[in-house]
Amino acid sequence: MLKDHPRTQAYKDAIMRNPSLFRNKIVMDVGSGTGILSLFCARAGAKKVYAVEASTKMAKLCQEIVKENGYEETIEVIQDQVENIQPHLKVDIIVSEWMGFYLLHESMLDSVIFARDNFLRQPEGILFPSHARIYAAPCSLSTLYKNDINFWDNVYGFSMNSVKNSMMLSKVSKPQILDVASDDILSEPVVIAEFDLAWMDPYDLQCFSSRKFISISKTGKHHGLCIWFDVDFRFDHYQNVTLSTSPMAPSTHWKQTVLVLPSPSDVEEGDILGWEMTFKQDDKNKRHYLITYGGLDPEIEDHPMPCCCQSVRCTLIAEMLKKEEEELGCEIFDV
Amino acid sequence: MLKDHPRTQAYKDAIMRNPSLFRNKIVMDVGSGTGILSLFCARAGAKKVYAVEASTKMAKLCQEIVKENGYEETIEVIQDQVENIQPHLKVDIIVSEWMGFYLLHESMLDSVIFARDNFLRQPEGILFPSHARIYAAPCSLSTLYKNDINFWDNVYGFSMNSVKNSMMLSKVSKPQILDVASDDILSEPVVIAEFDLAWMDPYDLQCFSSRKFISISKTGKHHGLCIWFDVDFRFDHYQNVTLSTSPMAPSTHWKQTVLVLPSPSDVEEGDILGWEMTFKQDDKNKRHYLITYGGLDPEIEDHPMPCCCQSVRCTLIAEMLKKEEEELGCEIFDV
Repeated sequence: MLKDHPRTQAYKDAIMRNPSLFRNKIVMDVGSGTGILSLFCARAGAKKVYAVEASTKMAKLCQEIVKENGYEETIEVIQDQVENIQPHLKVDIIVSEWMGFYLLHESMLDSVIFARDNFLRQPEGILFPSHARIYAAPCSLSTLYKNDINFWDNVYGFSMNSVKNSMMLSKVSKPQILDVASDDILSEPVVIAEFDLAWMDPYDLQCFSSRKFISISKTGKHHGLCIWFDVDFRFDHYQNVTLSTSPMAPSTHWKQTVLVLPSPSDVEEGDILGWEMTFKQDDKNKRHYLITYGGLDPEIEDHPMPCCCQSVRCTLIAEMLKKEEEELGCEIFDV
Repeated sequence: MLKDHPRTQAYKDAIMRNPSLFRNKIVMDVGSGTGILSLFCARAGAKKVYAVEASTKMAKLCQEIVKENGYEETIEVIQDQVENIQPHLKVDIIVSEWMGFYLLHESMLDSVIFARDNFLRQPEGILFPSHARIYAAPCSLSTLYKNDINFWDNVYGFSMNSVKNSMMLSKVSKPQILDVASDDILSEPVVIAEFDLAWMDPYDLQCFSSRKFISISKTGKHHGLCIWFDVDFRFDHYQNVTLSTSPMAPSTHWKQTVLVLPSPSDVEEGDILGWEMTFKQDDKNKRHYLITYGGLDPEIEDHPMPCCCQSVRCTLIAEMLKKEEEELGCEIFDV
């Protein structure tokens, strides 16, 4: 994970470029791993850092690294799950690298929320990162199709449709983690979920849906829906940093998550596509989600208001609403 | 495996460029997988191909692929271990892709020898491939050291020697499978084991040693010993093909196997290095080996005769022996 440069550099920038935020503060690092974030905080001037790490082996390693770098006075390694820590501990800042694939798969967000509710001083305490967003856009999967699907049409002169079919089935049956080329994204991305870590409720993670219509901006094969996330380290009067796992940003170990469609379709610039997508937390394992996806016919189904598709109707409505907002000086709808 | 182009292409070339070897012959494909080698044999003109595959799922897939390509009359899929097949079956050719990492790790060579001894017509039957060789050469591991070892010296401004040490220990404690750059090979390769599949005995696989002295041809860091293999499809009067997994050949899924030394040393062009290496079959799992390696001081230890190091003494002896060989018209020693 330390070798994921965009990830570690974003945390380093967000912490080290804002030393006045950390000076003399008490910090908790939830799931510290080797302790790199705790070290950033200590170097940025934190008075005390609690590096909480559940794995015995990793906590021991973290302790050794802390000592090796001369921070054993500042950083205290707590080998335990954050849920087991006595609640008398109070901290000013919670840092954590809790994100999983498509933000939520195997994520530690629930532990971070637990830490916020039990250890963070209210209301002045802050969370690092502070905000998270999940995006989606239709995509082509040119490399996947070339290497994993169409490869089986002609294998050294023989056809292997049996392999092709079972390969296709396995790709469709669960989300695929892969690097999607920026050229393969077929529309402007839309936000399908947004979380403000300071205020969100664990309930917000149980189930959420996205019903969207978008305009295709690039003619191509529509093979699937590409999903990714950004997190922000965003605080008024401080240097803000965004860690993006977008196909347009440098690749991270999170790559992108793709819902592969059972059969590709041709789309042209200006076409409108609609979908309804639901993320439902698994009852048995809260760190897993069941994602359901269905296409919506843009001619038949009601579009949301406002809608980010560029049909004449939705463009007009969006403009009207924008004008009204400007007149009222407030936000009516969140797109 | 089908996507390993050098591998599949070598088998295709060896079979399809020699149709006269296969025409009207009975073939056994040991461990057929998807059946690609059986298909090559059938297309090359074989009268009958027994595709032997132990895995139920794979045998079923193989059967479907055979049918899809219209070869169900020629290719008969046998779902079983070759050791369980009734010995009345007699074949002219055994083809098999049996090779594992460094040739022998998890290899199916024992099953191929069993098939040879039980099903191959003697003495005219042939094995595809026919010969195998294991090579070794000292190497640098510039990429491994840069990414996996020295990376921990400075991790975003912190030292992580604890990680570096445990990483080093894990690399040294078992052979590493990795792509070694051809530039990182520090001497001419030497053959450390050689097998003629037509004649070899399973006993030859139990334990073998290599005691060698070599001359360094490139100044650099000596980080480890690089091991790889070639197999030949070699028959008089036919087109011969070699499948090489050398660092100098296009990369295959076998990559190379490296015995990483606990501490690197500097070597210069012309230096002589010696080693003694033993491959010992695991008593419990014959497809695993215990490899031991020790350096030999070229000044103290006896060199073999002839020896491929370029010391004055060994060069003179090699020349003398060569001259004698030429005079006698036979081979005295195998280097």
